[in-house]
Amino acid sequence: MTSYIKIPSHLKPSDPQGPDLLTQERKSATFDVKELTLLLYGIKSLERYHRILNIIENDPVFDKSNIYFMGRNELFEYAIKKEKRLIQLIKENKWTVEELQFAEWFLDMPGPLGSHRGMFIPTLIGQGTEEQKKIFLTLAKNYQIIGCYAQTELGHGSNVQGLETTATYIPETDEFEIHSPYLTSSKWWIGGLGRTATHAIVMAQLKSNGKDHGPHPFIVQIRDLETHLPLPGITIGDIGPKFGFNATDNGFMLFEHIRIPRFNMLSKYSQVEKTTGKYISPPNNKLNYGIMVLIRSVIVSGVRVALARAVTISIRYSAVRRQFIDKDEPKKLEDGRIIETSVLDYTTQQYRLFPVIAQSYACFFTSKAMVNLYTEYTKQSSDGNYSLLADLHASSSGLKSLTTTMAVESIEDCRRACGGHGYSSFSGFVKFYQDYLPNTTWEGDNYVLTQQTARYLMKTFRQVMKNPEKHALKINKNPTITYILQYLNEPNQKCTATTPLDFNNQELQLKAFRHRVAYLIANAVNQIDNQKKSWNSMLVEINRISRAHCQYLLVQNFITALQYNSHQSIEDESLNILYNSKSLKKVMTTVCNLFVLHTMEKDIGDFFESDYLTSSQARLLRIQLYSLLKEIRPNAVSLVDAFLIPDSLLSSALGRYDGKIYETMIDWATKEPLNGITLNVNLDSNDKIFERAKL
Amino acid sequence: MTSYIKIPSHLKPSDPQGPDLLTQERKSATFDVKELTLLLYGIKSLERYHRILNIIENDPVFDKSNIYFMGRNELFEYAIKKEKRLIQLIKENKWTVEELQFAEWFLDMPGPLGSHRGMFIPTLIGQGTEEQKKIFLTLAKNYQIIGCYAQTELGHGSNVQGLETTATYIPETDEFEIHSPYLTSSKWWIGGLGRTATHAIVMAQLKSNGKDHGPHPFIVQIRDLETHLPLPGITIGDIGPKFGFNATDNGFMLFEHIRIPRFNMLSKYSQVEKTTGKYISPPNNKLNYGIMVLIRSVIVSGVRVALARAVTISIRYSAVRRQFIDKDEPKKLEDGRIIETSVLDYTTQQYRLFPVIAQSYACFFTSKAMVNLYTEYTKQSSDGNYSLLADLHASSSGLKSLTTTMAVESIEDCRRACGGHGYSSFSGFVKFYQDYLPNTTWEGDNYVLTQQTARYLMKTFRQVMKNPEKHALKINKNPTITYILQYLNEPNQKCTATTPLDFNNQELQLKAFRHRVAYLIANAVNQIDNQKKSWNSMLVEINRISRAHCQYLLVQNFITALQYNSHQSIEDESLNILYNSKSLKKVMTTVCNLFVLHTMEKDIGDFFESDYLTSSQARLLRIQLYSLLKEIRPNAVSLVDAFLIPDSLLSSALGRYDGKIYETMIDWATKEPLNGITLNVNLDSNDKIFERAKL
Repeated sequence: MTSYIKIPSHLKPSDPQGPDLLTQERKSATFDVKELTLLLYGIKSLERYHRILNIIENDPVFDKSNIYFMGRNELFEYAIKKEKRLIQLIKENKWTVEELQFAEWFLDMPGPLGSHRGMFIPTLIGQGTEEQKKIFLTLAKNYQIIGCYAQTELGHGSNVQGLETTATYIPETDEFEIHSPYLTSSKWWIGGLGRTATHAIVMAQLKSNGKDHGPHPFIVQIRDLETHLPLPGITIGDIGPKFGFNATDNGFMLFEHIRIPRFNMLSKYSQVEKTTGKYISPPNNKLNYGIMVLIRSVIVSGVRVALARAVTISIRYSAVRRQFIDKDEPKKLEDGRIIETSVLDYTTQQYRLFPVIAQSYACFFTSKAMVNLYTEYTKQSSDGNYSLLADLHASSSGLKSLTTTMAVESIEDCRRACGGHGYSSFSGFVKFYQDYLPNTTWEGDNYVLTQQTARYLMKTFRQVMKNPEKHALKINKNPTITYILQYLNEPNQKCTATTPLDFNNQELQLKAFRHRVAYLIANAVNQIDNQKKSWNSMLVEINRISRAHCQYLLVQNFITALQYNSHQSIEDESLNILYNSKSLKKVMTTVCNLFVLHTMEKDIGDFFESDYLTSSQARLLRIQLYSLLKEIRPNAVSLVDAFLIPDSLLSSALGRYDGKIYETMIDWATKEPLNGITLNVNLDSNDKIFERAKL
Repeated sequence: MTSYIKIPSHLKPSDPQGPDLLTQERKSATFDVKELTLLLYGIKSLERYHRILNIIENDPVFDKSNIYFMGRNELFEYAIKKEKRLIQLIKENKWTVEELQFAEWFLDMPGPLGSHRGMFIPTLIGQGTEEQKKIFLTLAKNYQIIGCYAQTELGHGSNVQGLETTATYIPETDEFEIHSPYLTSSKWWIGGLGRTATHAIVMAQLKSNGKDHGPHPFIVQIRDLETHLPLPGITIGDIGPKFGFNATDNGFMLFEHIRIPRFNMLSKYSQVEKTTGKYISPPNNKLNYGIMVLIRSVIVSGVRVALARAVTISIRYSAVRRQFIDKDEPKKLEDGRIIETSVLDYTTQQYRLFPVIAQSYACFFTSKAMVNLYTEYTKQSSDGNYSLLADLHASSSGLKSLTTTMAVESIEDCRRACGGHGYSSFSGFVKFYQDYLPNTTWEGDNYVLTQQTARYLMKTFRQVMKNPEKHALKINKNPTITYILQYLNEPNQKCTATTPLDFNNQELQLKAFRHRVAYLIANAVNQIDNQKKSWNSMLVEINRISRAHCQYLLVQNFITALQYNSHQSIEDESLNILYNSKSLKKVMTTVCNLFVLHTMEKDIGDFFESDYLTSSQARLLRIQLYSLLKEIRPNAVSLVDAFLIPDSLLSSALGRYDGKIYETMIDWATKEPLNGITLNVNLDSNDKIFERAKL
């Protein structure tokens, strides 16, 4: 890249130098970073990681050094080039799903073909018949057609049942007619639709013989394969600039009585009979729920990675950045010179950043648990046993809501913890945050989702209350039933802590979260059943319930992982590593305690309100929380190093592994195109911004 | 603007139509919107508002319809053009400060000359001698020179004492030598420096006769007035893209032994003697503190406006947007058709949005109180009485921190409450949020600032504890002393509420906040003085103290305004309007109660921890909070209408006064330039994104 400004080459940052500071930090670790990295990735996956990273980092097409300077059109054309190169690599290297996941993670750019790979193909697989797959899936997998998934409309997002686009069966020609009756029926937000896709899976209200059968998926060709122009009667466009995702052509689409063959209705579950137009309804949609659970487990592990990325930048920068001299304990160099204190030594900075490290590890163990539970479920469901599904689905909805909201908050906290430089694109936070943000809204709005969770929890509560004996059998099998039973048996549980250290007790921690969520459910059930409160009037409480339940799951999964012992049935690579390394177990226990106590402290009102905690205990909890920050401090840099987020992904001057922060900031600034343009507005004497001064 | 896509003209949004819905909403108001607007602006200011708005909206140079599509260079050149036009208007219309403020508000684009007007000129006025003003201020006011304020450096932001740039006095030539010894000494983040400014006020470490005298301001010419190129030995550039503020050329600057006349040191307070180089130190810096207080009162009233703008968009969109049918109380059209429920009727949406309305009104009354207190202070200080300053300065620091953090959170909450569309630039949230964000960091980082507040509060606590009798005289004069005395007299206060309605009691509300903050201070003082905890180890608690103190001030100022009666000494236009209108007072009282109870609920842990609240009372508080949401509902749209944020400022498809949301969304989308470009990447057969399918 061209640099428009020459920086005097003799200038160095003032001492101490970043690289030296990070080296020191790394020396103070009490555990083996490589071991922790292995716990997070596993051997196979780690090999994949390095192989794919090597390909991506050495491919000129994927060079990122320019992205922060690109306008939208540039970004989009750049994204298309990347997609084309990616397709070549997928074909050349015959990449597996896992390998492609790494590639997409390192590329770090939601692009025009995201929904082709992420929604179009999976939906064909999940809901297409063999005949339909033979045609469309083959073409899609060879990228001979590019698909998108067109569900959301200008007027309808969350409420799928309310979609306005219609698909009416025409017996005479054995076709469906896709139509947009209103402006609000326009498909909207559809990734890859704006300029790229040739085909769309369109969710439309199925009408046959004057009857409505609700939203169903239809495959519609939308662009000419020669000219790539929209087909007659179809209006398509890009929906315009967004907070992020500007390399993606999210699009809108209107249909004017578009005919498609009956064959194009995805018919694995429900179909319309030829000529009679008779609607054959699906057996059960439980399988779809299963898929949703899996998607959400992926989102939660995505949260883990997003948090890791954010906190890596902030921790490294805070270790290098020095500000003010701490009068109580001034820092000195070898030569005795007093220097400013590392920002990472200030307790507010530790209080802002260390819990984010803990959140990331908590999400790691929970997404792992979700996947295991999902595998267990698919085993059972193949034998027709769906008993796990309700809990799995409810929990995954709430977990998606809780963890993505947590992620966005924490990413922004990490950004602000970088002070002024956090506001610069060079921090690596700006594009990252902007692209991550939609996670709080898509795959179910984070507020709406919590209703599914709470509805299930209240239903379960009523059942258990009605017949405790029967449910007692399920204790320790189903976490929800477990804590509800415990609450019903002992509704007035109290915290037993008398010293700060008592709050490290895992049983005490679990009790706190179990009691709190059960209390909130009991309280809400009482208001609805006995005080006849309406569901709508309870929505805020419902949100609290879901949050409490899912925080409990995060805590429980973390603690269970720490309590794992190799005699347990499940063979788990990561958990074995944890079990076999004392030093790793020690630091992870501290991290777990930090996660638990920080989570309690943030919502401490709930623990008071459920009469579990006294005010003096709250003071003890805070004291313990602060001393955990001290414990983490020497391991802070190594804990983020273990995440192994490559510099090329961080794209951050502040988060560089080598600590050359200031050199990079100024080097990147010299490449800002604004430094290269000639400003006629300044220099043309008829058109200058100021009357030339006469000095 | 060119539209690249034709939308079928016969299409309308599905019923009910946005304009009809908003008309209905406006009918349900229980107060006179015009009256509330007058309360907020005052007659004189309202006249100015309309006069300036009319000029801005009708000037083609200020047309905003394109801004969401501009890249950085375009944005900057557009900004320069706007600045030039603005300068013409200022000169033609001889605009006063107030008039210019309105103009800049409506223009809504932080630009290259922002720091010329906002920092350079005020610093000249505040710290220049008469001789210096005669030369530099005159040129600056005529825009014959363009200035910037160069304090922050690459390596130092918050810690001004740690700045590295030096200004060494050279007796031989009676000059100062400005120099950047390190890379980290580079000035950084300086608004208007990148490409625009000709002069800079440079904060540099003053050295004379081998002694250091700390940072002082120096005027340095940095660009040639003919060529506009940086002067020899000065390296200048733009620091690159940012989260927002991309129309502003924030710059960096390095000096290589640059000589300036001694005259260029701003010497109103301190100076260096000719040839002897003797340093004459300032009398006292109290006056500068006074200025900071004023700047912060402006920031707080800026918070009021920012919150108003955000919640105006979300409330109007939520009133028009319908999603799901509420089974308990389904909504019907006149013709009996059941329609989806307005999003604004869901309690979660009310819980997310209505408190933001309340926060905005709370900030209005507090910024008003700050200005009054500042006026009072300046009166007294002119008689050498600075007694008000300490409290004023401490409170304003904490209020800046609390309210700007609150603003950023609430703006983002409002954005998310708009669902998917909140992520579109057309929502009006994206650029708005991005440009507002730095408020949490500049003018004092929001975490660092709270130390100033808490330090003063603890100091006061110790003094009052030592000598209560003496301070008893100051009761009701100084809010801090008042609540400290009350706490010392009655450290075990308890909340007396036995019904939800009791929480509307203003005395009960004030007691809660007074007791909580006093408790937190007492607790921290005890840990530092008796348990010998270090300051650094207490930083999190210190942050809580400042937060609690400033929340109390917001509550107190709001309640005081409501309790105002015309018999009071101070004649206040807004308060008289409030006093004379029953309907206005009623709705404002509800808004105040909502602010108080929502603030309590968010930090309810503190009220438990201070043993003021019991768990059953917390439940009552929530019940009352939810019923306040119901009370606000019919006035929601009118409460935001009263803010009088013009559509041209909102630049939002969702927030339009007329409710034509969907028509605007799609109309703006057709103008996205990406819809206009030809994608060679698609159409060139040697270079297409997919192998053409053979269907």
